[in-house]
Amino acid sequence: MSVLSSEFPVINALKKPTSDAWVEQAISNLDIILLDHSQCERKAAGSALNLMFRYPSNAKMVRELTKIAKEELEHFEQVNQWLDRRNIPLRHLTPPPYGAALKANLRPQEPNRFLDALLASGLIEARSHERLGLLATHCPEPELAKFYRGLMASEARHFGTFWVLADTYFDREVVMERLDELAEIESELLVNLYPEPRIHS
Amino acid sequence: MSVLSSEFPVINALKKPTSDAWVEQAISNLDIILLDHSQCERKAAGSALNLMFRYPSNAKMVRELTKIAKEELEHFEQVNQWLDRRNIPLRHLTPPPYGAALKANLRPQEPNRFLDALLASGLIEARSHERLGLLATHCPEPELAKFYRGLMASEARHFGTFWVLADTYFDREVVMERLDELAEIESELLVNLYPEPRIHS
Repeated sequence: MSVLSSEFPVINALKKPTSDAWVEQAISNLDIILLDHSQCERKAAGSALNLMFRYPSNAKMVRELTKIAKEELEHFEQVNQWLDRRNIPLRHLTPPPYGAALKANLRPQEPNRFLDALLASGLIEARSHERLGLLATHCPEPELAKFYRGLMASEARHFGTFWVLADTYFDREVVMERLDELAEIESELLVNLYPEPRIHS
Repeated sequence: MSVLSSEFPVINALKKPTSDAWVEQAISNLDIILLDHSQCERKAAGSALNLMFRYPSNAKMVRELTKIAKEELEHFEQVNQWLDRRNIPLRHLTPPPYGAALKANLRPQEPNRFLDALLASGLIEARSHERLGLLATHCPEPELAKFYRGLMASEARHFGTFWVLADTYFDREVVMERLDELAEIESELLVNLYPEPRIHS
């Protein structure tokens, strides 16, 4: 599935599409999905900050990830406003295994770790793009569907940014090969639906 | 020293003013101070996110800290633009002991930990307000001095936010007493000038 605009080389970033079972689970649990989505946006901002903390001298990366972190915080605010409107109090949800499992596949040695971190972040954005798109299509509430549609474009753009950053700091062949490997892993992680409704269940 | 606008009760938040020695050290090393300032803004955003991660169900706190985190990222961008304009490449600087030493004084048990975290964050903002004010007054470059003057107001406002949050979740007497204790500790940490020029040396 292509998540890229014409600014970037067309990559089939995701190896497997999301199952209908996820869509059914999500649409039947929109309140929980919103709560989890809120956490995802906060985590995405935190993860951009962590990358800047770990690689503080990569100026282009710092510039791009600051923009991404700001945008994730905007989305975090917007999702929290949706929760507020639906009288859903903020609370912690146990995360699905997806994020930690993906992280466990990052190679520990530099510069591999840096490349893997950029690509894993990109893949999470690509998957979010796909799933917010599915929510936009299947959500029975037109206003909420519209909200999801509005966020999709950012997720695709963020995937593009992570891809461009990987391509800036590494040779393209190395990037493509590793993206392919990590994308296989990412898709495998989602083969069995997590029993709790989550954006990445 | 009062860092508060009329919206908040007047508190002498800082127990001791910054020494002339710090001002001299900072003004003689403006490039390093800018680099360290950049890191401080990124850290402040990270620390707001960490508080939201630790206390995800405190809606008012989440709302206020999201605003703060966004503002810190704006400032991070602005400081980085100053670095860029002066051809100072981004790089990691060893932090002064201030932040870790302050953190070591947070009580580990909840709800004390939450109160201490809010107040310590507030004190760091209050100190930043004072020191950016000193930079604004003593910086020999008018444009840079103006930039520091512009940031001062936010730091004071942020102190106010942390104070109001502490006052929201805890009894005022408890807040005032603990603020007093932590402010003593904060000032003591800065009695001996750290040999490297830093915002909190």
